[in-house]
Amino acid sequence: MKKIYEGKTKTVYQLDDGNVKLFFKDDVTGKDGVFDPGENQVGLTIKDNGYYGLLMTKLMFEKIEQAGISTHYISANLDERTMTVKPVTVFGKGIEVICRLKATGSFIRRYGEYAKDGDILDYYVEVSLKDDEKGDPFISEELLEKFKILDKDEYKTLEKATKDITKIIQKTIEDKKLELIDIKLEFGRDKQGNIVLIDEISGGNMRVYKDGKSVKPIELSKILLDM
Amino acid sequence: MKKIYEGKTKTVYQLDDGNVKLFFKDDVTGKDGVFDPGENQVGLTIKDNGYYGLLMTKLMFEKIEQAGISTHYISANLDERTMTVKPVTVFGKGIEVICRLKATGSFIRRYGEYAKDGDILDYYVEVSLKDDEKGDPFISEELLEKFKILDKDEYKTLEKATKDITKIIQKTIEDKKLELIDIKLEFGRDKQGNIVLIDEISGGNMRVYKDGKSVKPIELSKILLDM
Repeated sequence: MKKIYEGKTKTVYQLDDGNVKLFFKDDVTGKDGVFDPGENQVGLTIKDNGYYGLLMTKLMFEKIEQAGISTHYISANLDERTMTVKPVTVFGKGIEVICRLKATGSFIRRYGEYAKDGDILDYYVEVSLKDDEKGDPFISEELLEKFKILDKDEYKTLEKATKDITKIIQKTIEDKKLELIDIKLEFGRDKQGNIVLIDEISGGNMRVYKDGKSVKPIELSKILLDM
Repeated sequence: MKKIYEGKTKTVYQLDDGNVKLFFKDDVTGKDGVFDPGENQVGLTIKDNGYYGLLMTKLMFEKIEQAGISTHYISANLDERTMTVKPVTVFGKGIEVICRLKATGSFIRRYGEYAKDGDILDYYVEVSLKDDEKGDPFISEELLEKFKILDKDEYKTLEKATKDITKIIQKTIEDKKLELIDIKLEFGRDKQGNIVLIDEISGGNMRVYKDGKSVKPIELSKILLDM
């Protein structure tokens, strides 16, 4: 098992059968010791964060697969804190897809003259480039095609998949009387060229509120899994 | 004649007949004494800049009007350094429309992983909000409609007008063996609700190169007017 990538929150290994194994670290993104799913840097380490992140990721990927949406998920090993996934290629040097149910965070920092915190956004989808140095700039459908990051019409597929997946996650969260505010998803292309959901789906990729207050990643996993 | 607005580079007066008079100041946008059409602050004052800006604006607005595209332009008074224009309402709290023929500046700062300085962009149009405090954030067609800044289908009209106007300006510039790299336009709605070109069209709103080097605003006006 050969390490092929050391990410901010995961380590990636190549398996002999062609699949890939992801190890979930305890590092989370944030700034100055405060968790922020929109941040690019590792801000703090939370004991067992990787374990709880994997638990929630397993739950969500299994629900999404059951709904007939393609993902890279094969299986999870909770003792090892690893998830085995299909090999994929990312779009360009990597993109992130954000789906917003309510306005907050960077949306307000940009559009605060026209929107206030909590305004309903009806699954507004934005795509940003994974480029820490340039602050993950947002990018339009037109440029995604021009730069050959997406093929023609793939944006529409990506946008629809994002909304469909977000609604599945939202339902799971609302069943526990919590509220999903926004979420960041990642996609890749599998060997057949299909667009599939990749990465993880944990508290580290989304904002979830309980009675108007942010729920921390581990607490979210525990609530969703009745722990 | 009542002053109704003091802008960064222009002073705006209300006329008794309902029209509006714009006085062209010598202040230009930039930073630390260096002219930059992408900057938000007044960076320096250049003697007679207002006069040469008005000269070029008059030339360009008359060409655009002759092409049958609606603008706010009525007449120019070079001695007074003023331009008389029709009253308009701006979109929301003001938007700027950028048309890029080649990649440079903020485009490279955002997309430098996928584009290099000088890459051909084929009249790529971007819209930003006039909001100095938030750094003039870019905004999508979908949000422009959601925030009711533009009505449905107005984006398409704006995008087409931007490309048509840019091509007229580009031709005028190329006739003098210069090259237009990018340009910033502003639009408003006239009393009949039509989308019309507003503001000025001078060296302060565009990047123009001569033999690969940037041409300063006053020099540009002089070249275009054979002075």
